[in-house]
Amino acid sequence: MARIVMKFGGTSMAGMERIRNVAARVKHVVEQGHEVAVVVSAMAGETDRLVGFCKEASALYDPAEYDVVVAAGEQITSGLLAMTLKAMGVDARSWLGWQLPIRTVEAHAKARVEKIDTGALLAAMGAGQVAVIPGFQGMMADGRVSTLGRGGSDTSAVAVAAAVKADRCDIYTDVDGVYTTDPRIVARARKLDLVTYEEMLELASVGAKVLQTRSVGLAMKEGVVVQVLSSFDDPTQDDLPGTLIVSDEELEAKLKETKMERQLITGIAHDKNEAKIIVTRVPDKPGAVASIFGPLADAAINVDMIIQNDSKEKEETDVTFTVPRADLARSVDILEGLKEEIGFRRIITDTQVAKISVVGVGMRSHPGVAATMFKTLAERGINIEAISTSEIKVSVLIDEDETELAVRVLHTAYGLDAPAA
Amino acid sequence: MARIVMKFGGTSMAGMERIRNVAARVKHVVEQGHEVAVVVSAMAGETDRLVGFCKEASALYDPAEYDVVVAAGEQITSGLLAMTLKAMGVDARSWLGWQLPIRTVEAHAKARVEKIDTGALLAAMGAGQVAVIPGFQGMMADGRVSTLGRGGSDTSAVAVAAAVKADRCDIYTDVDGVYTTDPRIVARARKLDLVTYEEMLELASVGAKVLQTRSVGLAMKEGVVVQVLSSFDDPTQDDLPGTLIVSDEELEAKLKETKMERQLITGIAHDKNEAKIIVTRVPDKPGAVASIFGPLADAAINVDMIIQNDSKEKEETDVTFTVPRADLARSVDILEGLKEEIGFRRIITDTQVAKISVVGVGMRSHPGVAATMFKTLAERGINIEAISTSEIKVSVLIDEDETELAVRVLHTAYGLDAPAA
Repeated sequence: MARIVMKFGGTSMAGMERIRNVAARVKHVVEQGHEVAVVVSAMAGETDRLVGFCKEASALYDPAEYDVVVAAGEQITSGLLAMTLKAMGVDARSWLGWQLPIRTVEAHAKARVEKIDTGALLAAMGAGQVAVIPGFQGMMADGRVSTLGRGGSDTSAVAVAAAVKADRCDIYTDVDGVYTTDPRIVARARKLDLVTYEEMLELASVGAKVLQTRSVGLAMKEGVVVQVLSSFDDPTQDDLPGTLIVSDEELEAKLKETKMERQLITGIAHDKNEAKIIVTRVPDKPGAVASIFGPLADAAINVDMIIQNDSKEKEETDVTFTVPRADLARSVDILEGLKEEIGFRRIITDTQVAKISVVGVGMRSHPGVAATMFKTLAERGINIEAISTSEIKVSVLIDEDETELAVRVLHTAYGLDAPAA
Repeated sequence: MARIVMKFGGTSMAGMERIRNVAARVKHVVEQGHEVAVVVSAMAGETDRLVGFCKEASALYDPAEYDVVVAAGEQITSGLLAMTLKAMGVDARSWLGWQLPIRTVEAHAKARVEKIDTGALLAAMGAGQVAVIPGFQGMMADGRVSTLGRGGSDTSAVAVAAAVKADRCDIYTDVDGVYTTDPRIVARARKLDLVTYEEMLELASVGAKVLQTRSVGLAMKEGVVVQVLSSFDDPTQDDLPGTLIVSDEELEAKLKETKMERQLITGIAHDKNEAKIIVTRVPDKPGAVASIFGPLADAAINVDMIIQNDSKEKEETDVTFTVPRADLARSVDILEGLKEEIGFRRIITDTQVAKISVVGVGMRSHPGVAATMFKTLAERGINIEAISTSEIKVSVLIDEDETELAVRVLHTAYGLDAPAA
């Protein structure tokens, strides 16, 4: 018997037929003797509908009231799943964010879970009652509703799993696991049985849509074993094939056990949500770069790849960097407002860019990964506009039109293609 | 300066354009220096959508989870109105049922308000902040969500008005007041400036859709002055023409003041939600009638008009009565299950019936009202199938097809027609 947190996303909760399918899966897990808590998203499209109302109300809508509005989506699905379970003879009840409560910091629309009171929850679960918990929502110290930011239900699930010390957090979604790359681009992409937290974190942060980045970080910090599964498989199947997300040590142990070798590269991700900004002819003196990035940081804009074209002669330099596309207009506004102060000439922007990343814990001990990447892309005439690296990731910025080509040639170059069927 | 509770129904909250219109009205009232609390319904159609999901989940859905699901509709509109007011420069915040809290009895899907904690609410209102409160919802002692039954937002508004000792409870709806009868049937129906609680209670209970019956009863008990207004009039108009619902004494005083005479009949209502049941050849002995109506009462089925055809000779009798159409199938099931025990021969049902009621406090001192009704209907060949009376109401059951005809001839017979334009 184990304690399991199951999480179902919006596609899995879209309509009563699918909710019944979710309930059948939960029932199957309960019947195996496990203690179960279920975290649910709103029906697919519902959060967009509610956010749409808020935007219609005012471009600068009040974030506290935004939270009241959008939290309703998960409230609805949690009630519906609980009543569907009861109708199937499975004892269940919904626990809304304020009822547990799920205590969050004071930050509307982008809250962080601080603490989940588990007394009543564990008592109910221990008595065999399934706890159905709306994802995405919490309560602040002042008693008002908060939400965790879009996609926050994954984070809710991991936070609940950590709080109840669950043996596993199963994330049911519309794909059946984590792949070496997007299977819609590369037909021979392979599903990964195992991936480490750090790899998943990098993959999620560069566009692999399977899990919210923050939820992976939280799972790593709290040591929550996460499994990604498909909610569209047979709900009564016992060993659904999914991807298990574990620590580096656990991965090593598993590899030893099965006498498998670690892959150099785990996956290739692409991200079309970046935009490039070039600030031209910035004075090449101490503090000049800080005068650009300081104000952007203050506005909570996440600057990613930075290149400074150092030109000693002219005592001026061009600074290139990327920001999320959604923040492009705001970034330009901020910088134009500081034109005199920074002393640049002009701002050039480009949204026709894509970030391609290769990720793998294996590259720590294999320094040739970046070189292979640059060479492979160069051979196909793909121009690299910027580069950024981390310990287990190399990312390059390229022309958006070349995204699919780049992903395919890299997938082959790193030996990730599945054997031909 | 007064303390005013404003209530807006689903049609007034259907979409952001209408919510903006509501906010404009609230702003206008705030700018006159009044302290304001607003009670809102869900968007028109939203509660039906949510109830539809519940019915799809299970015919016998769990009422506690039903409340969780359907309460979301008013949560959404309360947040949207609060953020719209803020965007218009009016300080406002939403107070959800569990935040105030609005304490209700332990009865899911049909709760009754027990107590509303007003400390924080009055402090906020006193500081000039508009309190936006979702109607229909409350919280039970065990901390779970409850709802007040369909149309419960009117009751929420009156309960809030009573709790904060409001000077007036303004119910904004899609009609501009209470009419002598349904203006869709009688073009010359007149809007009433004043109506007493008792009259409104009788009118609401027999099909006048303006206010929920329970809200009128509560207003009468708590002495809350209620005004019915149209939410589609110019939101900045000062004296919207509506109908004021007051006590009998207040009505008398107003009539004296304006030297007007009280009308004999205030209004004529029709109700197509009844069904007729005839239980034939019931043994004419003590306890026989109790054996029919006892079990129906136990099932919370509201039996209205009862006729017993006393036939001394045969020692058997036919019992005719009406129940709400929604409860017809359940009523028949219950009685068929007791066939042996009660000893009747068979059950005949008829849903092609309508109840027509004439209402007026004036009839207390004028005994001829019922006679006029019977004579007027007889003259047009309308057959009366059952009769019930109260102190200020006479109701008859007729063929549903004759509803409009009956309402029209009675409206004329009691002198209610407006002068020709």
